[in-house]
Amino acid sequence: MRKLSDLQTPFLAVELDTFHRNLETMQSVRPGSSLRPHVKAFKSTDIAGILKQYGYSGFCCATIKELEGLVANVLGDDLLLANETLNASRLRSLVDQDAQLTVAVDSVETIDAAKDGGIRDVLIDVNVGLPRCGCDLKEVAILCAYARRKGLNIRGVMGYEGHLMFIPDRAEREKGVIKAMQVLQEAHSITGGDIISAGGTGTFDLNKLATEIQAGSFLFMDTRYSKIGLPFEESLTIVSTIISVERNQKRAVCDAGVKSFATDYGKPILKDGVIEFCSDEHSTILPVEPSSELAFNVGDLVRLRVPHVDPTIAKHSRLVCVQEGYIHGGWEVDLRGW
Amino acid sequence: MRKLSDLQTPFLAVELDTFHRNLETMQSVRPGSSLRPHVKAFKSTDIAGILKQYGYSGFCCATIKELEGLVANVLGDDLLLANETLNASRLRSLVDQDAQLTVAVDSVETIDAAKDGGIRDVLIDVNVGLPRCGCDLKEVAILCAYARRKGLNIRGVMGYEGHLMFIPDRAEREKGVIKAMQVLQEAHSITGGDIISAGGTGTFDLNKLATEIQAGSFLFMDTRYSKIGLPFEESLTIVSTIISVERNQKRAVCDAGVKSFATDYGKPILKDGVIEFCSDEHSTILPVEPSSELAFNVGDLVRLRVPHVDPTIAKHSRLVCVQEGYIHGGWEVDLRGW
Repeated sequence: MRKLSDLQTPFLAVELDTFHRNLETMQSVRPGSSLRPHVKAFKSTDIAGILKQYGYSGFCCATIKELEGLVANVLGDDLLLANETLNASRLRSLVDQDAQLTVAVDSVETIDAAKDGGIRDVLIDVNVGLPRCGCDLKEVAILCAYARRKGLNIRGVMGYEGHLMFIPDRAEREKGVIKAMQVLQEAHSITGGDIISAGGTGTFDLNKLATEIQAGSFLFMDTRYSKIGLPFEESLTIVSTIISVERNQKRAVCDAGVKSFATDYGKPILKDGVIEFCSDEHSTILPVEPSSELAFNVGDLVRLRVPHVDPTIAKHSRLVCVQEGYIHGGWEVDLRGW
Repeated sequence: MRKLSDLQTPFLAVELDTFHRNLETMQSVRPGSSLRPHVKAFKSTDIAGILKQYGYSGFCCATIKELEGLVANVLGDDLLLANETLNASRLRSLVDQDAQLTVAVDSVETIDAAKDGGIRDVLIDVNVGLPRCGCDLKEVAILCAYARRKGLNIRGVMGYEGHLMFIPDRAEREKGVIKAMQVLQEAHSITGGDIISAGGTGTFDLNKLATEIQAGSFLFMDTRYSKIGLPFEESLTIVSTIISVERNQKRAVCDAGVKSFATDYGKPILKDGVIEFCSDEHSTILPVEPSSELAFNVGDLVRLRVPHVDPTIAKHSRLVCVQEGYIHGGWEVDLRGW
């Protein structure tokens, strides 16, 4: 059986046992339709297939490309585009393939696109505090009326409390969620419908209003999510080779850089050194204390903890699966792009 | 003919006239073998083919994947792996395809890998101030002797003054380059050989020692390089659609986020608004002045200036070529991954 050192670095490795443990933990709190796994986190039909085996058949997506991949692979019997789109023709093409597809709308224009695309079901996307998409609470009634006039069925509301995901203190995070969900509850009292779609990995068990939580990062975790005391563990690492070591062991360089991981949440973390700076295909590692020395040899493998999982996975075409130090196949990241 | 608005956003658009003007400007200063275009910037055999038409046939690469793509497409009669590698078997496979390949080495281990891979020609990579790869000046003689004992031919030296690329003041940048190149000159007095390979877009005309400059970003430029007064213009933009507008025009959201551009050098810049924060597939745009209003409609196209060109291109599978507002085909980004 092959080991990590048999593969060309850099690559992403998933510890299978940890990955499945994370899934089981989530399943014990949010089984079946109470979780809508977010495909944007992993962009992989292989992984969607595994989630299906765990009883998850309603997925949400951030891009039409992700939806197209699920539909082509007959994955998911209740798909949600949890994002705004104006691309009626690609919606139409999904509908023509009998996709069971609901789309989020937050404006007259996105309602028109849904209608033009042959979509039947929508969620009204409501801004609950994150300064991004979602209509103002004051607009819900008018958009609702407009969508119904167009013949669309309103299944409920969506509102993402993304601004609260990383609050370290659980009680404070919960307080924020309650406040944000008051807005969504009010919106829901206007729209009606079975669905209140919200949440993420950071609020998966705190959000009591949501009928379904949109989460994906919990499968892999990352250094930022690890700070807030969730019951999930990091299953993903960037595997990299030390390609250069300064003769006094004051500096080493590995072959993973910003083309293999995202740095918008900080730099990767490793044992026995600190990443000082990252270039395209390199990271420079310094001793933890300036007075100490590194202990790397050229050719050593290092495993870097991932700062931000979603955009890091999106830089790779494949995840390598690992169990007890050996390679157990891999998963294609086949839903990248747009 | 198709226009930008006919395509699915987000995507990267290259203004062809600007791209070719940048190439002509570079050619007037650094023709033929005095420039070794850096494939890491664009990761595209289509673009390498265009550079060949401009008289450039010696490329440098940061990854073996980039080299493999050039060799498979018979591009370049003098290729340089301007990076350290320990992967002898993939080097061997390139040599077996009659690739004319030189590799950078900075340690006994990388010399061994070159030898094991059947490589004949190496450059001694010397650290000239950037805390990354490259041996210490004091090690040059011993590595040189070791490489020669292994039967390798030393074509000269390489040293990247990457720490100086973005110094805004030209005179100060030049002073830094002179100092860094004194180290490289001393190294070269030990190694001999025809090649002194150094530089980048920021020092292309300042580095008087280098026999060849390694540059690629000049083709596209970005907001960081634009600050230092180079004779190149930005030819690349991220084309994105406004998908949500707050009803008081205090906030708009476009469909390009950190999965479509790199933010390690800052956020993208656009006209008529300021990007406040970026998520995976969204950027939130605020008015330039808090008291003013935006003037976007849902469905508007925006063109974002790129903060860091190389890792941004690496997030896309294709560049769309534009001339006078119309699409003129595109270039595949076919050398991504490792």
